[in-house]
Amino acid sequence: MMGGVRAAERSPTTGGYSKGRIRREDILGAAVAMYAEAGYHGSSLREIARRVGITHAGLLYYFPSKEALLAAVLERRDAEDGEREHLTGPPGLEALLRLIGLAAYNVRHPGIVELYSRLAAEAVAADHPAHEYFEQHYRMAREYAAESFRALAAEGRLREGVDPEYAALTLVALMDGLQVQWLSDRGRVDLVGSLRRYVAGQLRGPLE
Amino acid sequence: MMGGVRAAERSPTTGGYSKGRIRREDILGAAVAMYAEAGYHGSSLREIARRVGITHAGLLYYFPSKEALLAAVLERRDAEDGEREHLTGPPGLEALLRLIGLAAYNVRHPGIVELYSRLAAEAVAADHPAHEYFEQHYRMAREYAAESFRALAAEGRLREGVDPEYAALTLVALMDGLQVQWLSDRGRVDLVGSLRRYVAGQLRGPLE
Repeated sequence: MMGGVRAAERSPTTGGYSKGRIRREDILGAAVAMYAEAGYHGSSLREIARRVGITHAGLLYYFPSKEALLAAVLERRDAEDGEREHLTGPPGLEALLRLIGLAAYNVRHPGIVELYSRLAAEAVAADHPAHEYFEQHYRMAREYAAESFRALAAEGRLREGVDPEYAALTLVALMDGLQVQWLSDRGRVDLVGSLRRYVAGQLRGPLE
Repeated sequence: MMGGVRAAERSPTTGGYSKGRIRREDILGAAVAMYAEAGYHGSSLREIARRVGITHAGLLYYFPSKEALLAAVLERRDAEDGEREHLTGPPGLEALLRLIGLAAYNVRHPGIVELYSRLAAEAVAADHPAHEYFEQHYRMAREYAAESFRALAAEGRLREGVDPEYAALTLVALMDGLQVQWLSDRGRVDLVGSLRRYVAGQLRGPLE
């Protein structure tokens, strides 16, 4: 449902490789800016093409549909997050701290958080092209956190009565819910400190 | 910033009272439907008027601006929630259970949750006409929850180490964050059960 991005950067024409990559990045950047301003539904390929300075047909060469462009934006963000925060490491306390590291990164890049919150809220509608993406995204986040709490449980490091599945669900919910409050009222909500405190509250010993 | 709703229902013309009220309710209902479909930015007074079957000028008689209509939608929702769930009662355990009762009501009315999540996400932008509303809304929710946890603390009913302010911030964040996960994946997330479990986890004794 979300695939179909044309690999224009593999064009065999002279200079096409790097030029195509740059053009593709320009389009993704313009899409992110437009989603943040107008939401996904409020944006159009025509307007994004105009901002990049190419024709509508030119944009369709890189992204054949509005859905394909959204898919590429979300995939690029996940790839960047995963690489920067090493989110593919083994589950455990380090993994939970890496998730909080991602929240700390987001605090320094509020535009990303705004965009993501808006898209997630739009995509609760079952017919939204990113609906499946967010459903999978939340399942994966919960599972990664649950595996991490289970690893801590196996090491005897969880407080009595802490259930790994519930702690994981709650941690992921807190990341989203605190983000919305922090965006509404940045001076009064300590996003990263509150998340660290939550994880610390589940442990017998200190956080680090 | 959010005021300015004309009291058309007090029109002295014959039959104007009830007719004006009904028309006003029709417009609010159409606005809610349109925000849910297209977000606030994606909606227009012209289209809302068309759906109600009145002219644009006719709609402006009831709501002089797009912002005034949004304000009326949010105020009506707060008034309805407050009345139905008795959210004006004294702070304490009952108050926390009433907040969870509101979440339980929302689970049976997912359209409201979708609309609200979308507006809250749009309104993180400082220049959105509902920005101040949500900032105030979150402050009031946190304060009501914090007073409730403080009342429980004064009665010696909180677990050792539970901080009322942090518990309040976390409860409000969980309400939002669990809602987004529940909307994305309704079969796997128990919104109300998870909230009850959170509050129970802060207490020495049983929840009820």
